[in-house]
Amino acid sequence: MAGKTYVYLFNEGKKDKNLLGGKGANLAEMTGIGLPVPPGLTITTEACNEYLAGSGQFPEGLEEQLKAKLVELEKAAGKTFGDAQNPLLVSVRSGAPISMPGMMDTILNLGLNDTTVEGMVKATGNERFALDCYRRFIQMFSDVVLEIDHYEFESILEDVKRKRGVQFDYEIPAQDLRQLIADYKELVQAKARREFPQDPFEQLIMAVKAVFNSWNNQRAIVYRKINRIPDDLGTAVNVQTMVFGNMGNDCGTGVAFTRNPATGEKAVYGEYLINAQGEDVVAGIRTPEPIASLAQAMPEVYQEFIRICDLLEKHYRDMQDIEFTVERGRLYILQTRTGKRTTASAIRIAVEMVQEGAITKKEGLLRVPPSQLDQLLHRRIDPNANVDVIAQGLPASPGAASGKIIFDADEAEALGQQGEKVILVRTETTPDDIHGIVVAQGILTSRGGMTSHAAVVARGMGKPCVSGCEALKIDYQAQELRVGERVFKKGDIISIDGGTGRVIAGKIPMIEPQLSKEFNALLEWADEIKELGIRANADTPHDAAKAREFGAQGIGLCRTEHMFMATDRLPLVQNMIFAETKEEREEALAQLLPLQEEDFYGILKAMDGLPVCIRLLDPPLHEFLPHAEDLLVEITTLKLTNGDPKVIKDKEALLAKVKSLSEFNPMLGHRGCRLGITYPEVYAMQARAIFNAVVRLVKEGYTVIPEVEIPLVGNVKELAILKQEIIQVADEVKERTGVDFDYTVGTMIEIPRACLTADAIAEEADFFSFGTNDLTQTTFGFSRDDAEGKFLHHYVDNGLLADNPFAVIDREGVGELMRMAVEKGRRAKPDLLIGICGEHGGDPSSIEFCHQIGLDFVSCSPYRVPIARLAAAQAAVNHSSNVGQK
Amino acid sequence: MAGKTYVYLFNEGKKDKNLLGGKGANLAEMTGIGLPVPPGLTITTEACNEYLAGSGQFPEGLEEQLKAKLVELEKAAGKTFGDAQNPLLVSVRSGAPISMPGMMDTILNLGLNDTTVEGMVKATGNERFALDCYRRFIQMFSDVVLEIDHYEFESILEDVKRKRGVQFDYEIPAQDLRQLIADYKELVQAKARREFPQDPFEQLIMAVKAVFNSWNNQRAIVYRKINRIPDDLGTAVNVQTMVFGNMGNDCGTGVAFTRNPATGEKAVYGEYLINAQGEDVVAGIRTPEPIASLAQAMPEVYQEFIRICDLLEKHYRDMQDIEFTVERGRLYILQTRTGKRTTASAIRIAVEMVQEGAITKKEGLLRVPPSQLDQLLHRRIDPNANVDVIAQGLPASPGAASGKIIFDADEAEALGQQGEKVILVRTETTPDDIHGIVVAQGILTSRGGMTSHAAVVARGMGKPCVSGCEALKIDYQAQELRVGERVFKKGDIISIDGGTGRVIAGKIPMIEPQLSKEFNALLEWADEIKELGIRANADTPHDAAKAREFGAQGIGLCRTEHMFMATDRLPLVQNMIFAETKEEREEALAQLLPLQEEDFYGILKAMDGLPVCIRLLDPPLHEFLPHAEDLLVEITTLKLTNGDPKVIKDKEALLAKVKSLSEFNPMLGHRGCRLGITYPEVYAMQARAIFNAVVRLVKEGYTVIPEVEIPLVGNVKELAILKQEIIQVADEVKERTGVDFDYTVGTMIEIPRACLTADAIAEEADFFSFGTNDLTQTTFGFSRDDAEGKFLHHYVDNGLLADNPFAVIDREGVGELMRMAVEKGRRAKPDLLIGICGEHGGDPSSIEFCHQIGLDFVSCSPYRVPIARLAAAQAAVNHSSNVGQK
Repeated sequence: MAGKTYVYLFNEGKKDKNLLGGKGANLAEMTGIGLPVPPGLTITTEACNEYLAGSGQFPEGLEEQLKAKLVELEKAAGKTFGDAQNPLLVSVRSGAPISMPGMMDTILNLGLNDTTVEGMVKATGNERFALDCYRRFIQMFSDVVLEIDHYEFESILEDVKRKRGVQFDYEIPAQDLRQLIADYKELVQAKARREFPQDPFEQLIMAVKAVFNSWNNQRAIVYRKINRIPDDLGTAVNVQTMVFGNMGNDCGTGVAFTRNPATGEKAVYGEYLINAQGEDVVAGIRTPEPIASLAQAMPEVYQEFIRICDLLEKHYRDMQDIEFTVERGRLYILQTRTGKRTTASAIRIAVEMVQEGAITKKEGLLRVPPSQLDQLLHRRIDPNANVDVIAQGLPASPGAASGKIIFDADEAEALGQQGEKVILVRTETTPDDIHGIVVAQGILTSRGGMTSHAAVVARGMGKPCVSGCEALKIDYQAQELRVGERVFKKGDIISIDGGTGRVIAGKIPMIEPQLSKEFNALLEWADEIKELGIRANADTPHDAAKAREFGAQGIGLCRTEHMFMATDRLPLVQNMIFAETKEEREEALAQLLPLQEEDFYGILKAMDGLPVCIRLLDPPLHEFLPHAEDLLVEITTLKLTNGDPKVIKDKEALLAKVKSLSEFNPMLGHRGCRLGITYPEVYAMQARAIFNAVVRLVKEGYTVIPEVEIPLVGNVKELAILKQEIIQVADEVKERTGVDFDYTVGTMIEIPRACLTADAIAEEADFFSFGTNDLTQTTFGFSRDDAEGKFLHHYVDNGLLADNPFAVIDREGVGELMRMAVEKGRRAKPDLLIGICGEHGGDPSSIEFCHQIGLDFVSCSPYRVPIARLAAAQAAVNHSSNVGQK
Repeated sequence: MAGKTYVYLFNEGKKDKNLLGGKGANLAEMTGIGLPVPPGLTITTEACNEYLAGSGQFPEGLEEQLKAKLVELEKAAGKTFGDAQNPLLVSVRSGAPISMPGMMDTILNLGLNDTTVEGMVKATGNERFALDCYRRFIQMFSDVVLEIDHYEFESILEDVKRKRGVQFDYEIPAQDLRQLIADYKELVQAKARREFPQDPFEQLIMAVKAVFNSWNNQRAIVYRKINRIPDDLGTAVNVQTMVFGNMGNDCGTGVAFTRNPATGEKAVYGEYLINAQGEDVVAGIRTPEPIASLAQAMPEVYQEFIRICDLLEKHYRDMQDIEFTVERGRLYILQTRTGKRTTASAIRIAVEMVQEGAITKKEGLLRVPPSQLDQLLHRRIDPNANVDVIAQGLPASPGAASGKIIFDADEAEALGQQGEKVILVRTETTPDDIHGIVVAQGILTSRGGMTSHAAVVARGMGKPCVSGCEALKIDYQAQELRVGERVFKKGDIISIDGGTGRVIAGKIPMIEPQLSKEFNALLEWADEIKELGIRANADTPHDAAKAREFGAQGIGLCRTEHMFMATDRLPLVQNMIFAETKEEREEALAQLLPLQEEDFYGILKAMDGLPVCIRLLDPPLHEFLPHAEDLLVEITTLKLTNGDPKVIKDKEALLAKVKSLSEFNPMLGHRGCRLGITYPEVYAMQARAIFNAVVRLVKEGYTVIPEVEIPLVGNVKELAILKQEIIQVADEVKERTGVDFDYTVGTMIEIPRACLTADAIAEEADFFSFGTNDLTQTTFGFSRDDAEGKFLHHYVDNGLLADNPFAVIDREGVGELMRMAVEKGRRAKPDLLIGICGEHGGDPSSIEFCHQIGLDFVSCSPYRVPIARLAAAQAAVNHSSNVGQK
């Protein structure tokens, strides 16, 4: 037994989470603080990794260590493994360094065999219970280790219950259980072509290997991908003395949170089942009782449990998710971990724990994952809407959703990927359904409680979920759902309200979210701490107002092309494009001028006192013209049907123009400042519209801070020329109106060459704003429109890229260019204002990076402003030296 | 006269070329070494720049300095400015730091007025001569300074000659000249609304300002753009005592080169005119005598001139272009400069001067501009062709060309820009024709010698030119050309042979160039000195053989997509694309395999002993399919004409596939290694074809050095995965055949992200090859297909870019990324082989840059290999510390 230690007893004082997994470390820690934890041992993640790296062989020494520690465990439990009189039974559970609930396998009652089960009958004096444990063990072990589908066992069980005419498992009499065990063993022999293993140590070795292997099962891999958990952590295995919640009515098992995981309310929240084992609660097969009723059922146990909840929350300084079992009136704590929670709950818990003095503001800020704030910023059902409630379930995960009824995860996934909105409807969900849950708008189950699989997963993903809606009769065969007399077929639209548990027929009106007072408190703290400014991308006064409401400190990107696309303007824009001479073009632009002026007037007014960065026209001109293909079909048709030659000629002329403007690679074509350089009248008109609006607002007493932004600069001369033209227009407007005003002129940084020559560009720019969408396209040589449909998915799925670089800034490539641009730009002009307005401006990881490289602001969609505020605060906390001080 | 000196006498010993211009510095230098240079002074470029920067005012002190120096000049010449008895006359010429022959203006005989002309009559005793000088002066001065078109004067002159019935100017009698002068002065009064200036100093001031202004005339600007001469150098002005070649038959003027500027032959080569002024020779108005005949006409002058030629060439260590005048039997040297020459001549002169010991090998290598070698590598007329020679002119610039007859430079420019091949046909050309010459295939003139404007400019541009073809009667009015009885209209095709002077009807067969022995000698020296390897881009055994012949040291880029485009393969490629399953795709690929194998067999065999870098498939698959537009028209037509529904359905299915593969931005789409990643079978087939070919060649005793190149890598994982697959194929082939072989696997570096992460990529790569075409596209965000047609021209013309970045590497942007990639790549793998295979690999400036950043090789088209060899040698000479040592 030289070298590495692969096995630790809970009471050895080792608490290394990476080595023991979260669960193992917690069990050791709980044991250390004197909680009633059943004794056990942990096999390290290192053992797992060595096993997986090898060819399915235990690393050297593991088996011997396991045997030796088992002897100590036997001493602590006062029972012996495989003992015919008083056998030690254990649970075998996975426990990774990062919690992956339900993703890997668990086996209970290991140690039972034909001999020990009789010893257990004697030791407990409860034949039915012992036999039930044994048949459960055979079922679980066979499923997990021997890979025999558990439905095969369930169907034998259902047969027995039907024959016996009983409803619940515990109503099956002992003699039937004996037959059931025989039948189960026969099934094993038939399916696995081996006898059910009778040697408890062999059982243990097989179970440990199965848990190791479960690290690489499909659903674990998917879960890790979704949750960005590294594949090389490995899982530890916890082997723990069994305690029994199913030995009679003075027994039970339950799961509880120290605070409400849905709302954050400070009250122990959970469920338990009398006379049951833990899996019964989690699997959602029986609908459990709320924890409060334990106060009546077992007052002393309840008091003790509440005391322990308080102790654990104080010890871990966060809301805990605790599994417990009561065996003949004695409380055991099986595990505790930081509880998963909805975002609303996370906010309330964080804010209240700060207010209680339990944690600092900075810690509180770190407790809420900004990416999940999204769910609070989404819609809920309009309370004034007339809704057709068809059933009531448990409010398992807040938020509301509408979609087509789909009964199968694969089908949900297929439709969801096509952009269909679906509600996944299942009697209960299992980890095998996860791919369907990912794409669904919401989840509806007919069985299972607030801590059932569906509920836990949906909360984690911020998806609405209604669980345990027992009024629903789901018929997978017929692909329909019955509620009383009413029938809903696959594809019918329903809605669910995860905040109230209502299930509603049809699509329903939704309303905008309101931010809770805790949310606002959290965001205020975020504003105190964050260093980045948060602006919004908004093209209309309405969006601008929304952005302000969410706390935006300015507009980081006001695009002007959408203004050109409006139906009243498109003909004018087309006239401008078709102009043969500069004069014709100027005439068309003169008609656009007052319309653009109104646009800018509105948005600048809405942002009174805050900066508004207006980007001059960016897209290529052909985006404003009809499609060549449509014209081609039209012309061919006209010709073959003897159409009017005049019309044909006009269409052909139009087609010729469309073709002359069409481009092989429009993304890299004649757009942005290249248009400004070749058609200076266009930018001059836009500048005039901006400054005319500014003058009107200044006269009306508003404070306007216009920033004129030139897109697609790759060369300082482009900026220098266009800036000069803008200054000239500004001077003209000032002279004509006699009104003075301030403005700045800057540029998008969205071309690699702009980053590489940022020092020169900074000489001419008042500000930089990273356009990371285009910068990502050019740095990778990826056309987003093409890549996302054709190969990017493959790249992310196969680990060629950790993330979609259009969602999360690629720090190695794009980020390196950004870092270079900031460094060069500030070297040339130390007070250069630098921001980002690509979609990455609303992504927490990207915001963190922007903080790290020293940007002044990020700009994102109005609805993501709160997310950005929190993410910016977290970045400031994580990347400054005084965490926990404020 | 505090501060700056703006005026220097030739004999003051100042020789700063930037300050005095090339001509001024040479005149000072020639004066210094005791040559018979007429005394004079130079006004500095600094004065010019200050004048141009100001508002047309002389800088302070210039006028006073000019007056003071003029007094000294008067002393040296023994004549006085404006003196009624013995007036000093001067020439006023521009002289920029870099020679711009014929681009700016010259005025002769300045100082003449109604009074001094009579003094000159007396002093020379030659009334006709003095009056002729005066009328020439009025004409030139009015043209240059007062901007009165010289044709207005010419038409008065022609009237006089017609009335008098004489052919030549010098036959006009004195009394007619007096009337002519009166008429000229009247014309001036009418056109300029002022009297012809009579004050010689006023004349001088006006002339100097006109020369200053001529720096910014249109043709000077165009010339500078074409020749990449900075706009801010300014021009100096040389004021020099007039000597007269037109005082009688013991006078003359000429231009000569110390070696033959067309062939390089070591023999004084030039022309002179008896009784003429210098402009008569250069302007090509009269056809002059060869210099050799001066030996008979003026033996002493000839001997003296030959002596001076030798002296000057030795002094300046290069072939000189010398202007001289003989005044009453006395030789004066008016100017000398390094002579322009054809590339063939440059090579011969450089090689012979090295062989003579006059210059070092390294200096010799620097004497030949590599970009011009191109002209030697182009075609000439097949000597076996049956040609219809219609006339014989002077062989003014070598090479042959065919094209449409065009008589006007503007029209030539317009047609040339549309891609038409034209021959510009003029009686004589002037600097105003330069834009037409630029686009023409060749130049044909009916007047003017080997040193006429047309000849000089054409040689500089490496364009064929036949000059002085007096048999041609050109009628601009009728837009036709007569040779005896034959008439050629505008648009008819002719050919010219600039090497022999032949003018040929119609288009004629051309043949490939042969390299001269001097060229080969030069290239051998280049190979001794250069550090860069030179490879060629070749896709066929034929091109590979050509490349070897031109000295390529390997294939730097063998594209495989052209192989897929061949008509026998396209159907197979399309089958592969349409395959619905991996199996179907593999079947189609299996049919391509033997064809690809033959391709590689051929090219590897042709390059026996040298490396061949084979790039796996790069373009997007839709390039191999029919165009959607064509299908759309076909389908619409079929539908409207009740076509076969089955055919329509098939076409629609095809269209659907074409559309599903079509991309918004194909340049940034699903291509390169992205195809390799998503369809690994394609690259596996290609690798198998390569290795199968390798095995066959190894068995046949060839030495093959295959390099397998992965395109479009932006991420080391792409390379790692594909490399692994290639290794696997290689291992399979080795095992199957029992033949061992070497190969390397590397990558194109053509995406900014590849440069930014080059350290990681180098870990997996045996070599890097810069694909600077794509790297330029992505770094600038320019789609080459779109940019060159739409805005790049505007950018280059308006100085936003110094060069087309697709022709010359953009060192600031693209070059910075390259530098970074080299540095990171070598840091990770010090022996990493790095080359370039974009089109820049054949551009001298880009080759210099590649040398500077330490690449191992450049690869270019086979015909540019000699250019690359020379450019690489020049880079080695210019960027190493021991120039002139070898």
